[in-house]
Amino acid sequence: MGEMMKAVVYKGNGIVSLEDRPIPVILEETDAIVRVTRASICSSDLHIKHGAVPRARENIILGHEFVGEIAEVGSRVKHFYVGDRVSVNVETFCGECFFCKQGFVNNCIHGGWKLGCCIDGGQAEYARIPMADQGLTQIPQGVSDEEALFNGDILATGYWAAAIGELKPADTIAVIGAGPTGLCTLMSIRLYSPARVIVIDTSNERLALAKQQGLADFCFNPSEVNVEEEIFMLTDGRGADRVFEVAGGENTFQLAWKLTRPNAVVVVVALYEKEQTLPLHQMYGKNLVFKTGGVDANRCEDIMKMVQAKKIDTSCLITHRAPLNDVIKGYDIFENKLEGCIKWVITPFEH
Amino acid sequence: MGEMMKAVVYKGNGIVSLEDRPIPVILEETDAIVRVTRASICSSDLHIKHGAVPRARENIILGHEFVGEIAEVGSRVKHFYVGDRVSVNVETFCGECFFCKQGFVNNCIHGGWKLGCCIDGGQAEYARIPMADQGLTQIPQGVSDEEALFNGDILATGYWAAAIGELKPADTIAVIGAGPTGLCTLMSIRLYSPARVIVIDTSNERLALAKQQGLADFCFNPSEVNVEEEIFMLTDGRGADRVFEVAGGENTFQLAWKLTRPNAVVVVVALYEKEQTLPLHQMYGKNLVFKTGGVDANRCEDIMKMVQAKKIDTSCLITHRAPLNDVIKGYDIFENKLEGCIKWVITPFEH
Amino acid sequence: MGEMMKAVVYKGNGIVSLEDRPIPVILEETDAIVRVTRASICSSDLHIKHGAVPRARENIILGHEFVGEIAEVGSRVKHFYVGDRVSVNVETFCGECFFCKQGFVNNCIHGGWKLGCCIDGGQAEYARIPMADQGLTQIPQGVSDEEALFNGDILATGYWAAAIGELKPADTIAVIGAGPTGLCTLMSIRLYSPARVIVIDTSNERLALAKQQGLADFCFNPSEVNVEEEIFMLTDGRGADRVFEVAGGENTFQLAWKLTRPNAVVVVVALYEKEQTLPLHQMYGKNLVFKTGGVDANRCEDIMKMVQAKKIDTSCLITHRAPLNDVIKGYDIFENKLEGCIKWVITPFEH
Amino acid sequence: MGEMMKAVVYKGNGIVSLEDRPIPVILEETDAIVRVTRASICSSDLHIKHGAVPRARENIILGHEFVGEIAEVGSRVKHFYVGDRVSVNVETFCGECFFCKQGFVNNCIHGGWKLGCCIDGGQAEYARIPMADQGLTQIPQGVSDEEALFNGDILATGYWAAAIGELKPADTIAVIGAGPTGLCTLMSIRLYSPARVIVIDTSNERLALAKQQGLADFCFNPSEVNVEEEIFMLTDGRGADRVFEVAGGENTFQLAWKLTRPNAVVVVVALYEKEQTLPLHQMYGKNLVFKTGGVDANRCEDIMKMVQAKKIDTSCLITHRAPLNDVIKGYDIFENKLEGCIKWVITPFEH
Repeated sequence: MGEMMKAVVYKGNGIVSLEDRPIPVILEETDAIVRVTRASICSSDLHIKHGAVPRARENIILGHEFVGEIAEVGSRVKHFYVGDRVSVNVETFCGECFFCKQGFVNNCIHGGWKLGCCIDGGQAEYARIPMADQGLTQIPQGVSDEEALFNGDILATGYWAAAIGELKPADTIAVIGAGPTGLCTLMSIRLYSPARVIVIDTSNERLALAKQQGLADFCFNPSEVNVEEEIFMLTDGRGADRVFEVAGGENTFQLAWKLTRPNAVVVVVALYEKEQTLPLHQMYGKNLVFKTGGVDANRCEDIMKMVQAKKIDTSCLITHRAPLNDVIKGYDIFENKLEGCIKWVITPFEH
Repeated sequence: MGEMMKAVVYKGNGIVSLEDRPIPVILEETDAIVRVTRASICSSDLHIKHGAVPRARENIILGHEFVGEIAEVGSRVKHFYVGDRVSVNVETFCGECFFCKQGFVNNCIHGGWKLGCCIDGGQAEYARIPMADQGLTQIPQGVSDEEALFNGDILATGYWAAAIGELKPADTIAVIGAGPTGLCTLMSIRLYSPARVIVIDTSNERLALAKQQGLADFCFNPSEVNVEEEIFMLTDGRGADRVFEVAGGENTFQLAWKLTRPNAVVVVVALYEKEQTLPLHQMYGKNLVFKTGGVDANRCEDIMKMVQAKKIDTSCLITHRAPLNDVIKGYDIFENKLEGCIKWVITPFEH
Repeated sequence: MGEMMKAVVYKGNGIVSLEDRPIPVILEETDAIVRVTRASICSSDLHIKHGAVPRARENIILGHEFVGEIAEVGSRVKHFYVGDRVSVNVETFCGECFFCKQGFVNNCIHGGWKLGCCIDGGQAEYARIPMADQGLTQIPQGVSDEEALFNGDILATGYWAAAIGELKPADTIAVIGAGPTGLCTLMSIRLYSPARVIVIDTSNERLALAKQQGLADFCFNPSEVNVEEEIFMLTDGRGADRVFEVAGGENTFQLAWKLTRPNAVVVVVALYEKEQTLPLHQMYGKNLVFKTGGVDANRCEDIMKMVQAKKIDTSCLITHRAPLNDVIKGYDIFENKLEGCIKWVITPFEH
Repeated sequence: MGEMMKAVVYKGNGIVSLEDRPIPVILEETDAIVRVTRASICSSDLHIKHGAVPRARENIILGHEFVGEIAEVGSRVKHFYVGDRVSVNVETFCGECFFCKQGFVNNCIHGGWKLGCCIDGGQAEYARIPMADQGLTQIPQGVSDEEALFNGDILATGYWAAAIGELKPADTIAVIGAGPTGLCTLMSIRLYSPARVIVIDTSNERLALAKQQGLADFCFNPSEVNVEEEIFMLTDGRGADRVFEVAGGENTFQLAWKLTRPNAVVVVVALYEKEQTLPLHQMYGKNLVFKTGGVDANRCEDIMKMVQAKKIDTSCLITHRAPLNDVIKGYDIFENKLEGCIKWVITPFEH
């Protein structure tokens, strides 16, 4: 066994702990080893912790949203070198199969979401990245590690959602959920300049953040107002042109389609833990399009260009920042949304 | 009261009868009066008969799929003249509102599906067509009335479904349901030349018809084989690229999404009588797109061009043909699929 | 002859004069009469003055970019009422023909660009607008007449150009020409958030304006630097993803395609006075797409929504403002780009 | 020097000869060696012979359209094995660069059209294929070598042209040129079921072939009729919806745009030897889109599926067939279009 490092390990039964693990080594010629400089805790980590991600393995190192510096590369890695600063793509993919060729990288027949789930992830001092040429994105000069931290996961999710949303200027868009992924979705939607963006969340604090960041034209809290009525009033009784469901709450799927105008697109970004009802007989003739699923993180270079051009800035997401030593406390604060936590960022372990 | 004619009337409580009614007259300057030469019975007429179409009114004249000759035009009708042979569009629409401008004519704020439902339809000797410039399509020389009969409703439905299906050559397409609308969908799908078309129906007779018409490369009867297994075998374990659900059966919505490969499009053409379940948690990461709703009959001129060019031929649908005198018997045969009935065509009343 | 008004008349032979003309009256039931509150001088007016617009008629009242208040409406105008504040669409179109139905309104078989060219325009106290339901856009509360002034012509042009440009975030865009239409194109391009916008003009003053308005990330003056070299340097030797040619200069068409990367789109917005060479043998394999032509002003309601939402603001274009009394001086200053003139705005005649 | 084989060599100065050359060997780990079973002579070979392809090298083995059996594979070839029957892609590409990722494989930064031009091609007994995983397509059971012969070059060209042509049912399409590539374009266009296809060629023999193959609804020979007049007559004076220029003749580019309706797409498939004029001032307001360039052969697997499904059949192209021994005579017959030659197919050398 080689040198040891600290790592966050999923122990099963709702338990996450900080442990000593061997520093990973190159296993395939297309691997790279990344020394992690920033990682985050993601709501998917909580889903794993709760046992709601069937493919997650016990004793796996968690973490699928992180950046770092390349410590070692396999002999077949073509585009990256030791010392490069990189962000890591949530998905591991080959770039060559039927699905990858069409950009459907989360259905790569050799990959998909594996890091921090079925293979060791990045809430650690080091991580091994398989198929590194597809799995990494160069961080350019002028972009800090923190500015690039969300590039490969929640920002990729928001960017993907906006890209498939068939947005156009002059649209009225409703976004349900102003958590971290909701905010990244809003940042990405803003790139398409819809005339009006309506944000819906049960937290006034999060609504205020969206508004203050210039991401929301209108904010509604469903525990305070009748959101459906408000939106129909704003749209001459017609409904929103596009709705993004990023909350995954008890009634949010039903709310999503009810807010739409006929012939709208509903992008279902959230991950649900149970089945939903689809009242096709009630929505017959409304001609809705539902786009469901998980991020295809196939535009990470484009996203990095936008970060570099300062046209996307995720710094407002980082409400907490502490070394890996404090990560267990971080899980508690993030999970319970204490202290207004949006994102808990893990800095390197302090030996 | 003016001259009288024969007409099929929805009496409520599951009753349809042939009655005497006044011949309709021009009410608005944009109306036209059509002398009906051919009409058909449609499965939507049965839905009305069964009380499953809330907007349908008692004592309305049924029929929304018919062709004829113009007997009279209002003073503001610009494009049609007395004597023109025309097919009638299932939808009544203004062509000017927010929805019409985008081609979403079944959500026209002044229209939608009204004929034979909320206003008198075409199972009669004459019918009044509101907003006739949008509601009619010229039948060109070389096209018979019967060849044009399905242009405005079930063929428009199939054509619309195929057009929104994002089809491309080399795709494998599955179509659930080989009834009249299923066959029209298949005829329209063939225009996009998918490499393989798979038809699924519980009637071997209908499957045989689809095959004999060159509309099916493979046929599966779910009461005889495991359709899911068959399709995965044909597609290297991947699933169909596109699925069209035109059956509206007990389990057909669930079958539809299960037959797909990841990142497929499911076009839901059928009209359901109750809500469906959408197991988003099971299909997470499969990234499916669902396109739901009813026909936007906004391409009727294009369809007529295709009929004229002999690139669509619906003659195989007509299994029965009789004068309006026999229509009540026609409802029975069509509803119960007796005598291999696909479409019952009504010819003029014989005085 | 009815009441008289002041109007700018094209006299042929390069002469434009301010004359007395009868106030226009309703000729068709679909006409509206607009009392002009703001009009502008457009470079197309200069083309007419120079005899370069064959369809332009002598003794026509000039002006195709103006706003005002409705003074009278024909009996068949459905959507506008006396007193409504409106912007006027450069194009007159029916909304019903083959081309209009596809959004190609400048090829309307009953219309196209007619105002201030083949029929009397808006550099006057009043103007008659044919097919007013298509030719006018309501100015909503909160939008001033001046804010809406460019909606129907140069802003519609920029908006159309951007919309057909197949833009996506992360692109590098080059725009040749930072005059009034170039600036409107830039404002519209910004709605799609390209990572980098490069503006090219021979006037440093205009480049400075583009930069100051946040419309340009990089500015190049071809009389000072080698633009081709600069752009290839910025794009890793690849070239711009999209190029908009809005200058119509001696060599600008050739410059446009040379600045592109392979597989780029070149949108040719400018109006040329002579033929260009297309060296297909030199660009073989570069696989360029050229989109040529004139504005399809079919999105004026959308544009107005963006103006209302303060997501487009054209106020920086207005460098000069004077009553109709001074219009002849305005033509001189605008044509010769004196006093840094971008747009000369005509306010009502002062009796 | 290893074993020898026969090969067609470009000697410069318009000379092509059959010579002895060493059988190629694996040079890179991603190479494959193919034993050629069928090759063809292509008009691009003639362009090379005439000195019109600057990148072509003297003493290169010609041939970029061929099929065969894999004789040897490099250690990094993942998807092909010795004994596999394969068609060869005209383009050599990496699948990973900026252009490849977008499907623009003829602009691959490591490739493009190289075979039979800058590196030895397939008019020989064996050929070396670089980056074989991208450069080869499996020939499935049920497809003969000859049926797959045109898959990688002229059929890929026609398929690409149709795919970028924005075709839809009900369109009227004009195709200029019914030579081998024109016929492949027609076969590909037919997949999109346009209502009417008009073929234009100066050879009545070729027009007859197009008609007999069901590829043409109307045929016009510009040396016999005024094609422009005929097409405007067929289209109510409007012009063709799409035009494909596959002739590359003296006036065919000008003819192409003149045949269009406003807002049409012109796909320029032909390779010109000199620059063309683009009379933008005459076509202003016609709003044409020109798509120029060379094949992106990135859909070869899809094409093979269509060949396998018998939905494309190129057998009518093969008018001549003879062993490699007779290839010099073949060049003469093909170049001079003697004996009704469409395609001269080279079978293996007879020792």
